[in-house]
Amino acid sequence: MTFPVVGMVGGGQLARMTHEAGIPLGLKFKLLSDTPQDSAAQVVSEVVIGDYRDLDTLRAFAQGCDVITFDHEHVPTEHLRALEADGIPVRPGPDALVHAQDKGVMRAKLTEIGAPCPRHRIVSDPADAAAFAEEVGGFPVILKTVRGGYDGKGVWFVRSEADAADPFRAGVPVLAEEKVDFVRELAANIVRSPHGQAVAYPVVESLQVDGVCDTVIAPAPELDEQLAGEAQQLALRIAAELDVVGHLAVELFETRGPDGKPAILVNELAMRPHNSGHWTQDGAITSQFANHVRAVLDLPLGDPRPRAPWTVMCNVLGGDYPDMYQAYLHCMARDPQLKIHMYGKDVKPGRKVGHVNTYGADLADVRERARHAADYLRGTITE
Amino acid sequence: MTFPVVGMVGGGQLARMTHEAGIPLGLKFKLLSDTPQDSAAQVVSEVVIGDYRDLDTLRAFAQGCDVITFDHEHVPTEHLRALEADGIPVRPGPDALVHAQDKGVMRAKLTEIGAPCPRHRIVSDPADAAAFAEEVGGFPVILKTVRGGYDGKGVWFVRSEADAADPFRAGVPVLAEEKVDFVRELAANIVRSPHGQAVAYPVVESLQVDGVCDTVIAPAPELDEQLAGEAQQLALRIAAELDVVGHLAVELFETRGPDGKPAILVNELAMRPHNSGHWTQDGAITSQFANHVRAVLDLPLGDPRPRAPWTVMCNVLGGDYPDMYQAYLHCMARDPQLKIHMYGKDVKPGRKVGHVNTYGADLADVRERARHAADYLRGTITE
Repeated sequence: MTFPVVGMVGGGQLARMTHEAGIPLGLKFKLLSDTPQDSAAQVVSEVVIGDYRDLDTLRAFAQGCDVITFDHEHVPTEHLRALEADGIPVRPGPDALVHAQDKGVMRAKLTEIGAPCPRHRIVSDPADAAAFAEEVGGFPVILKTVRGGYDGKGVWFVRSEADAADPFRAGVPVLAEEKVDFVRELAANIVRSPHGQAVAYPVVESLQVDGVCDTVIAPAPELDEQLAGEAQQLALRIAAELDVVGHLAVELFETRGPDGKPAILVNELAMRPHNSGHWTQDGAITSQFANHVRAVLDLPLGDPRPRAPWTVMCNVLGGDYPDMYQAYLHCMARDPQLKIHMYGKDVKPGRKVGHVNTYGADLADVRERARHAADYLRGTITE
Repeated sequence: MTFPVVGMVGGGQLARMTHEAGIPLGLKFKLLSDTPQDSAAQVVSEVVIGDYRDLDTLRAFAQGCDVITFDHEHVPTEHLRALEADGIPVRPGPDALVHAQDKGVMRAKLTEIGAPCPRHRIVSDPADAAAFAEEVGGFPVILKTVRGGYDGKGVWFVRSEADAADPFRAGVPVLAEEKVDFVRELAANIVRSPHGQAVAYPVVESLQVDGVCDTVIAPAPELDEQLAGEAQQLALRIAAELDVVGHLAVELFETRGPDGKPAILVNELAMRPHNSGHWTQDGAITSQFANHVRAVLDLPLGDPRPRAPWTVMCNVLGGDYPDMYQAYLHCMARDPQLKIHMYGKDVKPGRKVGHVNTYGADLADVRERARHAADYLRGTITE
């Protein structure tokens, strides 16, 4: 048989769950992982241990792979260009991926194609940040290093010029953005293949706690129907303009215009399976992971529609309670429909070590079940 | 974390799909496989290559496993007893498993507990088989070697005494059974845990072609409601009486009594995930694989109810067309809701190399979609 070999760079939970989704397709899966203990390395047969920042390592890994895709966005752009020059399909390609790697490049491109963004510009130092604050109506503003941030890292909420020194210490360009007075956060997730087919998942609501995704509700409750369509269209247009292949998460702010009408602004882009799409494993006909794999192989995409009226995902963060397996007894007995997804990671406070999905027709019930399970697994509650 | 290690003996597709179902639970999965090319060995991280018929190999494999379970029923009973004596939980245990290993033991036990069976007895030679035929109204009768058969192997449809020589050549006891004039074949699948919790899946219809399962329809169409309940109760009772742990498939004949009333007879037992339960991967809230894992770990079981009005599974058999991956293009484009499950096996004519699942509200449509995909993947049709 001529089943292809998918090379996955990065051994985190996204790689783990992509592997899981690839098993039914009979794919061969090869993993480049930092350590044998990484989340995905625990469950994949063919694992290469190595540093994705080293071009020789990447080149050796790519031998025998029919396509390369990613668990994260941290592979240097020039290395991806080198792999492409070697004739290895890299999906998403470096010209697309740079927009998820560099927030400055992302904002410039989105502005160029007319995608709605918070006001923003690159600032050179704390005084320049203060000048930017002046331009947008005063502090607070958001400062972000253009590269290397995730889950709230690399992002500062800045209240004064004196407060603005930290972001500049890394020697990386700093992007200033107005603090958006948003109603809530949404995500428009789509998957696009090289031949241009694309599917759009329902727009979801994402609730953050301390800058980390906590709960995702699919679809976003009481979302204006026209706005939902606009958000999906926007995500599809961004994917086409940037030539994204695979899963694209467009994180959005829902705002109110001067007329009180709902509107959206783009917050972040991610070009890989994304936390805001984990609900699709149990709540959609085709999961984001299955569709990401199908896209990078240029196979026809699967139906993205939901299988239940409501699906809720809650992340399980590490807490003080190390033995999450023991907590399965309570959680599974209490809710025989609960879907647990653990990543095989050691528990550290605040670390994402898993998530749970629940679905059903009654949103309040579905939310309560997911919340309870996540809190119980974390150890925040004991009954 | 104290996540358990599940030791799986056998590297076939059942092990492959059980591993897939265990990934979200964060379990560690260890595989004893005949070769590195076996279906499950391709996708599992920790694989031991060895012969399950060798006790020393089994003992070494079992080191560090919290529980041992099975892809097949061929491990010698005395080896399982030795592992138990070593203190390793074996699930299902040898006292249960022997009923799935030896058709003579199975029939004797089922008769003892009053489970409805075809008329049967052990026969000693072709003349004795002819005597048995006389007892049940004449040829044809079914002869089965009590051990070593599967998928129609080890089973003979015998029309005369002269026809009855083959089954005795292996030197294994031969069980004679009347040829049941059945309406159709059903399967009642349940999962039972060591602490006695059990869940019953809907009773399904199983269509065989040349003695091999071809199509499964869940639930069995137009099945008498009372008979469905009886079949589930029977499977639960067999599991309790035989102390089965894990998935139990009870293959049934649906017959008509002298009064025309529907009735059931037990055909075969299987104590592991079973082909008649593959539909649960996409059609039930909790799959047979996930519930088998939960049962062998004595975790609370998941909800077995269906997620769609109808789910249909068709097996993909090897045909003349070796390149099934190429066929994905047509199948996925034609039916974006299609669920393909391939096993990573080389195509050989008649070999089970995968299956497809479809689900929906219109049974005729659901059947047509599964049939088309299975035939297209096999190469029987080209459009």
